[in-house]
Amino acid sequence: MKFDVLFGGVSFEHEISIVSAIALKKVLGERIASFIFIDSSHRFYFIPTDCMKSKFFSSGAYKKCTELFLQQGGFCKKGFFGFSPIAPHCVVNLIHGADGEDGSISALLDFYHIPFIGPRIESSVMSFNKAFTKLYANARGVKTLDYEVLTRQDSQVRHLQYPLILKPARLGSSIGVSVVNEEKELDYAMDLAFEYDDSIVVENFKSGIKEYNLAGCKIKQGAEYVFKYSIIEEPSKKELLDFEHKYLDFSRTSQVLKADITPSLENKIKDNFAKLYENAFEGALIRCDFFVIDDEVYLNEINPIPGSMANYLFEDFANVLEDLACNLPKRHSIKVSYNYIEQIHHAKGK
Amino acid sequence: MKFDVLFGGVSFEHEISIVSAIALKKVLGERIASFIFIDSSHRFYFIPTDCMKSKFFSSGAYKKCTELFLQQGGFCKKGFFGFSPIAPHCVVNLIHGADGEDGSISALLDFYHIPFIGPRIESSVMSFNKAFTKLYANARGVKTLDYEVLTRQDSQVRHLQYPLILKPARLGSSIGVSVVNEEKELDYAMDLAFEYDDSIVVENFKSGIKEYNLAGCKIKQGAEYVFKYSIIEEPSKKELLDFEHKYLDFSRTSQVLKADITPSLENKIKDNFAKLYENAFEGALIRCDFFVIDDEVYLNEINPIPGSMANYLFEDFANVLEDLACNLPKRHSIKVSYNYIEQIHHAKGK
Repeated sequence: MKFDVLFGGVSFEHEISIVSAIALKKVLGERIASFIFIDSSHRFYFIPTDCMKSKFFSSGAYKKCTELFLQQGGFCKKGFFGFSPIAPHCVVNLIHGADGEDGSISALLDFYHIPFIGPRIESSVMSFNKAFTKLYANARGVKTLDYEVLTRQDSQVRHLQYPLILKPARLGSSIGVSVVNEEKELDYAMDLAFEYDDSIVVENFKSGIKEYNLAGCKIKQGAEYVFKYSIIEEPSKKELLDFEHKYLDFSRTSQVLKADITPSLENKIKDNFAKLYENAFEGALIRCDFFVIDDEVYLNEINPIPGSMANYLFEDFANVLEDLACNLPKRHSIKVSYNYIEQIHHAKGK
Repeated sequence: MKFDVLFGGVSFEHEISIVSAIALKKVLGERIASFIFIDSSHRFYFIPTDCMKSKFFSSGAYKKCTELFLQQGGFCKKGFFGFSPIAPHCVVNLIHGADGEDGSISALLDFYHIPFIGPRIESSVMSFNKAFTKLYANARGVKTLDYEVLTRQDSQVRHLQYPLILKPARLGSSIGVSVVNEEKELDYAMDLAFEYDDSIVVENFKSGIKEYNLAGCKIKQGAEYVFKYSIIEEPSKKELLDFEHKYLDFSRTSQVLKADITPSLENKIKDNFAKLYENAFEGALIRCDFFVIDDEVYLNEINPIPGSMANYLFEDFANVLEDLACNLPKRHSIKVSYNYIEQIHHAKGK
């Protein structure tokens, strides 16, 4: 089983995706058959493994690589006699943020019948938009912190108390996020967030809150589907992970320590993960970040394409990824038929 | 302003989309520059206007037409010296059901920078999945009927009373829908619905309920964005619109009569429509179907690509479509940057 790693994309996390892909190269080595880069104009390039250095992209040197095109069944390169397909492998969607996590890339790969690891369109949308994530989690019996949604048309905070945390609804990596301690700081924080999105999710800001991250996916063991969980990590404490720290975070490749929590809390966290994953995220390896307050578990966010695939949380990452690749979800098969048109023509005697 | 009408697609409503496109040809005439057909293997074909007859597709004759390919900026045909673009126009996404309404086509058109009329990815997902539509509507202050979601893992109806109506979560056109009068009929209805989807939305079935449909979109008038509403229609009463009736329904081109309702109810329906549309469906002409019970308005469903674009509900349909095409939503512009990579290289002295 070999992988094609798809990275880059038009998002504020473009650089992070490059770093993430370089980290995955370290972890997966020969298991990666090829790297496919999406540049700022949505063009695809075939990147030889030995070119996988960040400067290769920032300098624009990648433009000398072979351009690829999407065709039914896989990526192709242009030759003298038309298109020739490159050898197909399971694609790993490693595009963080817009394009990768908003459903676009999933839709493209699905449309062109390319097998891939990553969230499908629906689960992308539900995890990408933080307001939808709340609705989704609550509907599945997973608690979230209280929140309000602000838009340009209605930007009044109604019932939440200060301090507040404002987040653009559809951005990851702490971009555009502010903590607001009192009302006079609110306008500035809103302006900042509205630069990135038309809607903002506001929550109470709780400092010193306990945070736990769990990654996992559903794989087939024998005839049964089972959850394959990572260890639970208590991420290093910072009030707010700024972009630079997040950047370093996405390049992690060394194993971390298991959080020191009770088996009962561990099970609670896993239960919540399963409620979120089931019948939605099949085909993806996701990381859910939870808050724990008074022994109650609250979802903070779902990362459907975590930095460097959260490899550092798994003891046997490569095997998990291979197992996942062997059991990708199939779309409900739809047979196009012309029964009604034929009936009508038959009735008309044509 | 000319349009390219995109139709077909891999969905149970493939035939309906063909009928819908033929109806639109009648209504828009010369305003349609070209028809682009997506067949059962997700290939695109350029269909000359005079071939727009249903038999052309059911017979497979369309396969002799020029195949088109998606490239940055538009649809292209293959020539001796590579690709040549066909003249670009505003695309009307007229693919009902899967592909068209599940976000796939929106993602493709957006990714390839092709301007189009139709729902964007997010609003597609929220309207395509009936369970998500409930969450979405309620979050925006729009009432819906009580419901439960059944899955293969948990298919117990817990609090709803018979008679029930079961609907596959992600199918339109009444496919897989059953009314269940008593418990012994439930299993069969579930089996039927699970043939089409992994989740089922169940509601109380209320017969004789009042139904009203309203279509509309947001367009620019001078410097202001305003809602452009159709007339409100009371659709002809049938307990359940079967596929065949729905089929005929999608070919409608003649104007209908305005429902006989009070101005106050009319305003209530429009208010609900606006709550659903705002900051989500921009770029699309949608039809919302409402129930009215004791003067209260409930959303039944959002059709983000209504049959033949609900042309028959508008007095000046062609103008509405043109106005909409002139004011398509722009994606939040994202400039790909390499600031952090450059900083790191700078710090390393490379």
